[in-house]
Amino acid sequence: MKPIDFRSDTVTKPTPGMRRAIADAEVGDDVYGEDPTVLRLEARVAERLGLEAALFVPSGTQANQVAIGVHCRQGDEVLTEEGSHILHYEGGAIPALWGVQPQPLSGERGLLTPESVAAAVREDNFHYPRTRLLSLENTHNRGCGAVWPVERFRAVVEVARKAGLAVHLDGARLFNAEVAAGVPASTWAKLTDTTSVCFSKGLGAPVGSVLAGRAEHIREARRLRKRLGGAMRQAGILAAAALYALEHHVERLAEDHANARRLAAGLAEVPGVKVEAARVETNMVFAEFPLPPLEAVALLRKHGVLASPAGGPRSLRLVTHLDLSAADIDEAVSRIRRALA
Amino acid sequence: MKPIDFRSDTVTKPTPGMRRAIADAEVGDDVYGEDPTVLRLEARVAERLGLEAALFVPSGTQANQVAIGVHCRQGDEVLTEEGSHILHYEGGAIPALWGVQPQPLSGERGLLTPESVAAAVREDNFHYPRTRLLSLENTHNRGCGAVWPVERFRAVVEVARKAGLAVHLDGARLFNAEVAAGVPASTWAKLTDTTSVCFSKGLGAPVGSVLAGRAEHIREARRLRKRLGGAMRQAGILAAAALYALEHHVERLAEDHANARRLAAGLAEVPGVKVEAARVETNMVFAEFPLPPLEAVALLRKHGVLASPAGGPRSLRLVTHLDLSAADIDEAVSRIRRALA
Amino acid sequence: MKPIDFRSDTVTKPTPGMRRAIADAEVGDDVYGEDPTVLRLEARVAERLGLEAALFVPSGTQANQVAIGVHCRQGDEVLTEEGSHILHYEGGAIPALWGVQPQPLSGERGLLTPESVAAAVREDNFHYPRTRLLSLENTHNRGCGAVWPVERFRAVVEVARKAGLAVHLDGARLFNAEVAAGVPASTWAKLTDTTSVCFSKGLGAPVGSVLAGRAEHIREARRLRKRLGGAMRQAGILAAAALYALEHHVERLAEDHANARRLAAGLAEVPGVKVEAARVETNMVFAEFPLPPLEAVALLRKHGVLASPAGGPRSLRLVTHLDLSAADIDEAVSRIRRALA
Amino acid sequence: MKPIDFRSDTVTKPTPGMRRAIADAEVGDDVYGEDPTVLRLEARVAERLGLEAALFVPSGTQANQVAIGVHCRQGDEVLTEEGSHILHYEGGAIPALWGVQPQPLSGERGLLTPESVAAAVREDNFHYPRTRLLSLENTHNRGCGAVWPVERFRAVVEVARKAGLAVHLDGARLFNAEVAAGVPASTWAKLTDTTSVCFSKGLGAPVGSVLAGRAEHIREARRLRKRLGGAMRQAGILAAAALYALEHHVERLAEDHANARRLAAGLAEVPGVKVEAARVETNMVFAEFPLPPLEAVALLRKHGVLASPAGGPRSLRLVTHLDLSAADIDEAVSRIRRALA
Repeated sequence: MKPIDFRSDTVTKPTPGMRRAIADAEVGDDVYGEDPTVLRLEARVAERLGLEAALFVPSGTQANQVAIGVHCRQGDEVLTEEGSHILHYEGGAIPALWGVQPQPLSGERGLLTPESVAAAVREDNFHYPRTRLLSLENTHNRGCGAVWPVERFRAVVEVARKAGLAVHLDGARLFNAEVAAGVPASTWAKLTDTTSVCFSKGLGAPVGSVLAGRAEHIREARRLRKRLGGAMRQAGILAAAALYALEHHVERLAEDHANARRLAAGLAEVPGVKVEAARVETNMVFAEFPLPPLEAVALLRKHGVLASPAGGPRSLRLVTHLDLSAADIDEAVSRIRRALA
Repeated sequence: MKPIDFRSDTVTKPTPGMRRAIADAEVGDDVYGEDPTVLRLEARVAERLGLEAALFVPSGTQANQVAIGVHCRQGDEVLTEEGSHILHYEGGAIPALWGVQPQPLSGERGLLTPESVAAAVREDNFHYPRTRLLSLENTHNRGCGAVWPVERFRAVVEVARKAGLAVHLDGARLFNAEVAAGVPASTWAKLTDTTSVCFSKGLGAPVGSVLAGRAEHIREARRLRKRLGGAMRQAGILAAAALYALEHHVERLAEDHANARRLAAGLAEVPGVKVEAARVETNMVFAEFPLPPLEAVALLRKHGVLASPAGGPRSLRLVTHLDLSAADIDEAVSRIRRALA
Repeated sequence: MKPIDFRSDTVTKPTPGMRRAIADAEVGDDVYGEDPTVLRLEARVAERLGLEAALFVPSGTQANQVAIGVHCRQGDEVLTEEGSHILHYEGGAIPALWGVQPQPLSGERGLLTPESVAAAVREDNFHYPRTRLLSLENTHNRGCGAVWPVERFRAVVEVARKAGLAVHLDGARLFNAEVAAGVPASTWAKLTDTTSVCFSKGLGAPVGSVLAGRAEHIREARRLRKRLGGAMRQAGILAAAALYALEHHVERLAEDHANARRLAAGLAEVPGVKVEAARVETNMVFAEFPLPPLEAVALLRKHGVLASPAGGPRSLRLVTHLDLSAADIDEAVSRIRRALA
Repeated sequence: MKPIDFRSDTVTKPTPGMRRAIADAEVGDDVYGEDPTVLRLEARVAERLGLEAALFVPSGTQANQVAIGVHCRQGDEVLTEEGSHILHYEGGAIPALWGVQPQPLSGERGLLTPESVAAAVREDNFHYPRTRLLSLENTHNRGCGAVWPVERFRAVVEVARKAGLAVHLDGARLFNAEVAAGVPASTWAKLTDTTSVCFSKGLGAPVGSVLAGRAEHIREARRLRKRLGGAMRQAGILAAAALYALEHHVERLAEDHANARRLAAGLAEVPGVKVEAARVETNMVFAEFPLPPLEAVALLRKHGVLASPAGGPRSLRLVTHLDLSAADIDEAVSRIRRALA
């Protein structure tokens, strides 16, 4: 029985079309700035996000961390929602790489209020770290894939601006937000100084993220990318897949969203499982199972369904993606029903 | 009108007896380990805290930070209550100096529960920072000078031990806890790996803190003190004052505590001021004033009373100390009453 | 006129066979440890270097830096030859990422003596950084591609061992050393704790390096790779090219070496150019030109030859590689002769 | 037999007059900026060095490190002579605290040439650390207490300025230079951005250094001092001694210099000892002894003379100071003669 893999949208494998794009990629030495495919991808992303320039990096973690390094120096502070990816899943990099202190703010499904941001900015006093950056996440992973309402996003950014903060957007799944909200990704991105997008999540490319932003920030990002060991040579091999994804895999995220809703609806019918179907906005379903997360994961695995613990005491995260069809969803619901029977 | 200064117990000035001790101090070059007064202070503190060894440093911030540097390496995480001094008043040093990420935990008056500590420890996974240290604070400054009940402290430490964490105690005001609780400071300290105590707060010495702990930790602390620029030469000049304070100014902290209760009782009678007198355990009074903190501070200053903002939207912190008598307290209450009239 | 590119062996483009290997790569999510091609590459390299385990990373810089992070902590010191890559071409990462101080040692063509290493180790004293790591480079880039004689390498490593140092080998071009010296790469690598090798230099793969070493070091390296943003998803796309290079492009480095000698011999005949042909051991030629490096580079570029400044006041570096034939060498010599005429 | 202590000028003990100044010091809480003696000292030093502002810190190490932190950010590079104090005796703090890479330059008795500085500045390229600061030392400790000739100093600073570098002067013994050269300390200091001076070396105060510089640099230095744990409360106790030293112990450094020459002349007559008397410019004598440094130190100690190893294979450093008279020098020479007989 082939497992149905909901652990993450990072598990997707390149499609035949994408493999052809990879095999045929025109390449050069990107450390010398000579890889035409990388250059094309960077230009395309910058344009699409409404930002001046962009930089290709090997991972979403590196895209976010380079941004933090661009905006902050040692002893600075970054405000971010308490469940954000940069806080939990980037190996403690904010302090370890940059000497920067995160200040976690309580949010609601990963979203902040203008008031909470305003209250968190510290006055200038040598006792305190210097509040320097606001980092947001859209869609918000631990927030169940929530999409930032544009007006709320704008209001929060405005507060940060007034306080003199830079603004970064972790847009690893920003194209999910674009598709779900029906507005271009640039709607959010152009309000920020820097925005990262990831190609190896729902977009299905094997490797790579892009950090976009103002030209001087991206120049400095290039320096930091080198320091972190993210400067690659014939990276066009990877950028070709990202370009392919940008052309062929954005609109189809709607299918993943539909599948997530289908999954939520299915799970809602399984005895013992609690799922708030109304909270499924993109490709993530958070569901409570009647046993501890690690045990639930193990049980489901035995029945051919892979999922991840979601942070809460009894909840799992299930993510839909390119390699899962509506039929897979139905089959998975059956398997889960059997597992819990 | 001489202002009555409640801003902090750090404002105390050396008494004539202390000045004599300073002037007569036997000294040597402490970087060579040859200052007899520093050595005596270190031995005395280690013994009093029930720990193996100790190190004199110029400030409470350095004592705490050296401890964090001893226990952690880059990419590690320290658990600490969300209002703790190391998080807010040490210039962002935890990440800036050590590359360590603080995880703020919700507490009650600065005190944690065993459950909250247990829940915060991360499993070993390269996505996460490595949870490595629990740092507690006794008395807890932002927690209104609260004293850690010994059994609760023991239970929290036990949870940390089970999880393999080191334990540091920020005991800047540990002797206030000793006097308030009527148990020796070692009751808490000997449960920890390292404990800092400060002599330039309620104890009235001009400068200096001591970090005590296990011998190998203190050896490493000596290295880190040098790196931070805290290794001083004829530091016996300062250590003499600390020794004097240890002999003459510990028991008398009871007066400060009585004065704090007197102040709280007095303020409770002032129209417009809210103070929970029952929460005054040591030498701090947190009171709500009927105007924003910075305005309240300014108003009181005009009437000859100095206080600090306390973090909340309308509250001030008032700290009693060696240079304030019961009469000062009464006079201050009168002035505050007049100010608010 | 198509330029003949001697700037670096990093400019090579994937061959048709390599592109097929890339297109057909079996992949999985390597962050979950599930990419079979990456796992195969890591096992193959570990075996070939005589080390326990290995880790795929996006660049030679990251391979070296992760190794330094594994062996050292803040305040430690790494001994390395004064022209080494980690000192000059990794963006200041040794201090910036790890808080580690490099101590540059004078060498001869990049090679150290046991005596110089012994003399550089500091005694244990809190005034000093803690000498912790010796990092060597084979072949040595700024040392004109010099190969470490095995006995000398062994003697230097022995001195480091006696002093309690860890030993890392930057083997970005270790397979050039293998081919030039006629001994397996493991001859050097198995004497070290960690050794990096790079696939996007002479071996001709588009992207990627591998760090090999003891199992516990590689476990920690995995954690640090994540922190630096080097953990990639379907990285088998890149690892497939590296595996292909390992099978098809190692022995052929002999051609690059022959071409380098051919180039040196040719340049020796060009009036105004000085080259020590006897010093050409692998694929690098360092030659003195009768004008400042940047002017020489520009002049040659105008005549269809690309080279790099080499550090000295009048010298250039020319590197042979997979994309250059013996005929290209001869044509380049003609062009250079014309340029200088 | 009371040992005659030449290990360092840091071993001096406060004189009775200085002790009185300490005992009578007017103090306040310097973290609030309210210690009048500290403020007076800071103003006095700034004026004397021809710089805008100044900051009192607990040690010379902290003064230098704070300066480096003010001028540099992670990934930057500081140029400094290869024997400088910041490189060898500050616990690896340059990289550990600031993530900055030192580039050691060869000098002559600790002094650099304009050419060597010019050659060391790197072009702007993301492969390299960013050259940002030149740090000089006057007098130069490992350079045998050499004094920077003013014109040479000016020429070196000019080169740095042209390259856009900031300039820091480690003036731990700058007043020795002032006395030896017969020009005010400001002659050098006013050419720099920041200059540190130390009071616990030849000036004989127990503890403390001052960093002076431009107002905005000193503001930032105050922030960094807090982070390092160098902000002290009633620090006037220490500043009073520094002020006393400034008034009473500067001119008398001439005696230490005369004693150093007397010591050098005496040692030159001792069989087996080599000393270049002509190189004694201030209060340091470097002499070669006919046995390895640690053995020589031990032998002399047995005969009542304390000295330090000086770095070379057979040389010791002997430092004259406030607590050594001409008679002590003569007695020490006799003892050394006996020791080597």
